[in-house]
Amino acid sequence: MVEVSARDGLQNEARSLPVETRVALLEGLVAAGLRTLEAGAFVSPRWVPQMAGTDEVLRRLGQPAGVTYSALVPNLQGLDAALAVGCREVAVFAAASEAFSRKNINCSIAESLERFGPVLAKAREVGVAVRGYVSCALGCPFSGEVAPGDVARVTTALHEMGCYEISLGDTIGVGTAQATSRLIAACAAEVPVSALAGHFHDTYGMAVANVQAALEAGVRVFDSSVSGLGGCPYSPGATGNVATEELVYLLEHQGLATGVDLERLIEVGVFIDSQLQRVGGSRVAKAIKARQCFS
Amino acid sequence: MVEVSARDGLQNEARSLPVETRVALLEGLVAAGLRTLEAGAFVSPRWVPQMAGTDEVLRRLGQPAGVTYSALVPNLQGLDAALAVGCREVAVFAAASEAFSRKNINCSIAESLERFGPVLAKAREVGVAVRGYVSCALGCPFSGEVAPGDVARVTTALHEMGCYEISLGDTIGVGTAQATSRLIAACAAEVPVSALAGHFHDTYGMAVANVQAALEAGVRVFDSSVSGLGGCPYSPGATGNVATEELVYLLEHQGLATGVDLERLIEVGVFIDSQLQRVGGSRVAKAIKARQCFS
Repeated sequence: MVEVSARDGLQNEARSLPVETRVALLEGLVAAGLRTLEAGAFVSPRWVPQMAGTDEVLRRLGQPAGVTYSALVPNLQGLDAALAVGCREVAVFAAASEAFSRKNINCSIAESLERFGPVLAKAREVGVAVRGYVSCALGCPFSGEVAPGDVARVTTALHEMGCYEISLGDTIGVGTAQATSRLIAACAAEVPVSALAGHFHDTYGMAVANVQAALEAGVRVFDSSVSGLGGCPYSPGATGNVATEELVYLLEHQGLATGVDLERLIEVGVFIDSQLQRVGGSRVAKAIKARQCFS
Repeated sequence: MVEVSARDGLQNEARSLPVETRVALLEGLVAAGLRTLEAGAFVSPRWVPQMAGTDEVLRRLGQPAGVTYSALVPNLQGLDAALAVGCREVAVFAAASEAFSRKNINCSIAESLERFGPVLAKAREVGVAVRGYVSCALGCPFSGEVAPGDVARVTTALHEMGCYEISLGDTIGVGTAQATSRLIAACAAEVPVSALAGHFHDTYGMAVANVQAALEAGVRVFDSSVSGLGGCPYSPGATGNVATEELVYLLEHQGLATGVDLERLIEVGVFIDSQLQRVGGSRVAKAIKARQCFS
């Protein structure tokens, strides 16, 4: 389980949180049992004010044994900033859709991959692991459908460049189980399925079903956000990432141990929702809190 | 698609709605393209005040060509009341869990089936179709796990007694896709899969994934509620039935035509949520409304 609430979650919430709150969120998640967490992004605070102070967040967290706090880095400068605060893992962000790549990161897919070349080379040199994201893996807000072959191509490129894991992102949450199965099949034909992760947004309520489809296709790593934090920049007000609570429920009830304490996780969700003044996005949390009131 | 918002949905909402609002809800759903709808229940208003006036609801609706308005009937008296207002379809409600049967309908499973005998006999005589519900098909709030074999036994009994369709209900929404697959396999070994329907509550956010698992097992009939109306009497405040909007999205995007106009359906959801003063329960509706504001 890769907890992305402090990055993908918070960057899609209207309210920006101070460093201490983000540190409390991340440490709470670790206390609940999560072990791999994206702590922030080294991007311009002009474009993503929610990620300002990522260096300070990471400095305060440190890199405790058994826990991986990673950061998104768009380029070599970002990698250097991550290295300066001791990151042992970083992530790069590509897109499967040409239109999205141009509008979101302001360059073509090929140019973005070129830009990641020196990042991956330097990361290898200093022994830092790099995770790759492929966004728009099940659809693009600008160009609509995205062919599984296009996703597989970018996935393969990132894998060959040295990304140890590639997270396939349904950025706008439009995919269904059927589409997810086709996507994983296309990508697993090119890279080992153990190098793939699923990153599903619940915009249209399909995320849990998509996780299940990916599980059945052999994927064993999933990104999620506590309390379903986040949203969709292309549908403001819509539902965010699949909730970590739902992921824990699904996995544990199907015989896959997560090591996460669900009750503690729910408390972290209550904390961060109150900080953001938002309504919680986890139905598992809602049901368990309701049951507690009832009994 | 069997729309259960006016029965299973409303009976789990705290606020009782007057007859005219329920008629408007049902007619709105028909205008959106739904064709099979549960309109109410002939149960004591002392126990279920939300269903008071079901006779009047059905009288006002009539039985227009191409539309089936059915009603839940607990016994022969209920059937007579349904016949008096022209129902061409009714439903009976059994449980797969002995503990639930005793607490919910105040008799053993065997006694409930015995009680349905005369209902089914008379319905056959007058040419009225009977649908059967098996509740607690994936878990019981009192006794926990429910074996698929126990569900298959009640399902078979209802089928042999003359129910043309048996709706397998995850009453408390605890099931996962894996459990759903096992359940459908067990029941389809005893009765034709075309006689089975899936009825999933989204209490723990698993409903869409469970619909998908049932689809893959050959089930082609699903119960749902517009805007996810309803809840769970055993976890007050928890999420209700799978939202009809989510079901339409899932099916249509996987090549299964529903005949439902999603935009009109969403409008019906907005209407009924305002009447109930509740927050909508469909993420599809939320995303589409957000997209409309954005563009």
